[in-house]
Amino acid sequence: MEKKPFLTLEQAQNIIRDIPTPFHVYDEKGIRENARALNAAFSWNKGYKEYFAVKATPNPYLMKILQEEGCGMDCSSYTELMLCEACGITGTDIMFSSNVTPAEDMQKAYDLGANINLDDYTHVAFIKQVCGVPKTICCRYNPGGVFKLGESEDKVQVMDNPGESKYGMTEEQMEKAFVELKAAGAEEFGIHAFLASNTVSNEYYPELASILFKLAVRLRDKTGVHIKFINLSGGVGVPYKPEDTPNDIAVIGEGVRKKFEEILVPAGMDDVAIYTELGRYMLAPFGALVATAIHEKHIYKDYIGLDACAANLMRPAMYGSYHHITVLGKEDAPCDHLYDVTGGLCENNDKFAIDRMLPKIDRGDIIYIHDAGAHGFSMGYNYNGKLRSAEVLFCEDGSHKLIRRAETPKDYFATFDFSEFDLDKNE
Amino acid sequence: MEKKPFLTLEQAQNIIRDIPTPFHVYDEKGIRENARALNAAFSWNKGYKEYFAVKATPNPYLMKILQEEGCGMDCSSYTELMLCEACGITGTDIMFSSNVTPAEDMQKAYDLGANINLDDYTHVAFIKQVCGVPKTICCRYNPGGVFKLGESEDKVQVMDNPGESKYGMTEEQMEKAFVELKAAGAEEFGIHAFLASNTVSNEYYPELASILFKLAVRLRDKTGVHIKFINLSGGVGVPYKPEDTPNDIAVIGEGVRKKFEEILVPAGMDDVAIYTELGRYMLAPFGALVATAIHEKHIYKDYIGLDACAANLMRPAMYGSYHHITVLGKEDAPCDHLYDVTGGLCENNDKFAIDRMLPKIDRGDIIYIHDAGAHGFSMGYNYNGKLRSAEVLFCEDGSHKLIRRAETPKDYFATFDFSEFDLDKNE
Repeated sequence: MEKKPFLTLEQAQNIIRDIPTPFHVYDEKGIRENARALNAAFSWNKGYKEYFAVKATPNPYLMKILQEEGCGMDCSSYTELMLCEACGITGTDIMFSSNVTPAEDMQKAYDLGANINLDDYTHVAFIKQVCGVPKTICCRYNPGGVFKLGESEDKVQVMDNPGESKYGMTEEQMEKAFVELKAAGAEEFGIHAFLASNTVSNEYYPELASILFKLAVRLRDKTGVHIKFINLSGGVGVPYKPEDTPNDIAVIGEGVRKKFEEILVPAGMDDVAIYTELGRYMLAPFGALVATAIHEKHIYKDYIGLDACAANLMRPAMYGSYHHITVLGKEDAPCDHLYDVTGGLCENNDKFAIDRMLPKIDRGDIIYIHDAGAHGFSMGYNYNGKLRSAEVLFCEDGSHKLIRRAETPKDYFATFDFSEFDLDKNE
Repeated sequence: MEKKPFLTLEQAQNIIRDIPTPFHVYDEKGIRENARALNAAFSWNKGYKEYFAVKATPNPYLMKILQEEGCGMDCSSYTELMLCEACGITGTDIMFSSNVTPAEDMQKAYDLGANINLDDYTHVAFIKQVCGVPKTICCRYNPGGVFKLGESEDKVQVMDNPGESKYGMTEEQMEKAFVELKAAGAEEFGIHAFLASNTVSNEYYPELASILFKLAVRLRDKTGVHIKFINLSGGVGVPYKPEDTPNDIAVIGEGVRKKFEEILVPAGMDDVAIYTELGRYMLAPFGALVATAIHEKHIYKDYIGLDACAANLMRPAMYGSYHHITVLGKEDAPCDHLYDVTGGLCENNDKFAIDRMLPKIDRGDIIYIHDAGAHGFSMGYNYNGKLRSAEVLFCEDGSHKLIRRAETPKDYFATFDFSEFDLDKNE
């Protein structure tokens, strides 16, 4: 898929006049259009709801935009629940999917009336003890083993390894949990599973749906509970590389519909709502990290140094992830220079790109790092005393708005009591 | 090497009464004794100085302890320079070793009178333009190729790959840089190189010293500059695993002395000072992450969930690093249970240990994660809205002191302007 920035050099420069690089910028138009296409793809299901995975991009301004497009929020922690509350997002507009859950997080989710997703069988006793069992409750499923896609043996693609993953319950535990939760007053049940991350395959969601729909029928038959929703969670990915084929969300929605009609409808379960918890798919392509090339060096390889680093976008350092790079204003220049594009951390893994063919880069060039709209700012750290950068919304009308200010040294020092030290010099 | 906690269960519980888990705790006695042993190992060199790598553990209280033991500070950024200033550490008690250096960082280092270490040949022009060339200046060397240890071909151990690393200058660039810096007024020169990380080998520093001492002689001969110091940087590691053989710092110091007498003394350069920039070696073993086991689950594997996560210690998630684990109070119990020990992030890499044999762990047990004193807190992030934990000093007299408070939601939200939202509910 052609990787095209959503900003021109001129539009980036307009922002930079107000807000110095580096910053994350988000494309309101792209976010809204994508959310609408997702909702359209699942419009056949009357209870359908996307719960945006707040962890991907925990910014209240972006959450508000998604809320306006009909999305709920998937929270994993106390602070994410607080963010929802501040945005006026409460009740069943929240899914709370957490693991190793602290008691105060469980209590907060209960107080907000969220759909709570229990990660483990022991959390049945835990929730009883912390806050009691709400009327609607969800349990997370882990089928174990290896998760594969494909019909015939020679075409099978191993997607991920749920048997090695810490999440969820076995089927036997799900059954026990449903029985105990029903006895404790739960009336409506949900099923949730996450089996593979960032898939670029239109078959993943339908295959997962098939597994969960069949499980839902078995659990309903065995326990007699009413299954209100099935949450397909995340896993629908984005094409980070130009050679990746993007998912077609309409085809995915249609694939899930087919399984729904094959499995749930004949079982008399056509009232089940489908939920999704997409983060990456909702925002990654609609956010970019914009940085300036501030140094170049030529030793045994050629390096371009940016004013951004892994503190702003950790995925390349942590996962070796590919993020496409465009030199704004040089979109049509030949990619005839081989560079490592680096940040300034004292860590040799602080490289946005290794051995990447790019146009000749000059100091001062504006570098657009694609697909940083999810798991970008949110995974930032302060290693080497680096400060996390600002977030900017590129609005539908072409204007821009600061939606999170950059950190200052004062933020970095906030957790110290400097009364024994001489910090006045710094102020 | 036997992995023994520096805290007993009772001592940990004393701290927990004041400061809830998770927290990082540091052993003042261990830090001081280790710093003294390092200084003793290099006492043969009259200008010797350890510059603690602040990035490893940027805490002013710990910096003060190391300062009292005669250490300077190695800074990589503006905020680290500010920390030094607040601690009253200025002038040549600071090494400033940075790469992709922003102009304001360079200016700040210059203003503080730090020993500035230029990462690249282009930084000669850069420093002239930003602040001018100070009287003492250092350049960072990168020999390229692959760095090996060992005399005979069949015993050679590949340590690291400097040719793929973004740091430093070629020898030709070092020579040009020295000539130009001298012409611009520099009077005293330093040489710096970092070739391998976390070595557990008494041969690394002497081998590196040999390379840099010979380089120093060549550069002195060709350019006529006065070499004031040679900075061996970091790389002296710690035994994370019980089966690792620890470095013997006295043997290392003696190995460097031998090279000094073989190479520098005959060249009439016996006034060269040796500097080191150790971070991990100074603090990793003398800090621990203390957490509570809050959940256990049994699905396809057995899991223990802690109230700490990768937000507190990222090395296992980012590098797959081993950190030894002791269950306090069960030091002598048989390690007859196989566990994954996890944090609560929605990331399957958030595991402190995978397939680790440990004593049977019960909820409420206090878990001591070893060797978290460097690159522990400092690499923490806020992913999933998790808050970074407190730092505690376990003092020589057995008392304890909070040396950094834990983050609160208010810190997490500090960079938002919530005026458009309804945050009052959260306050």
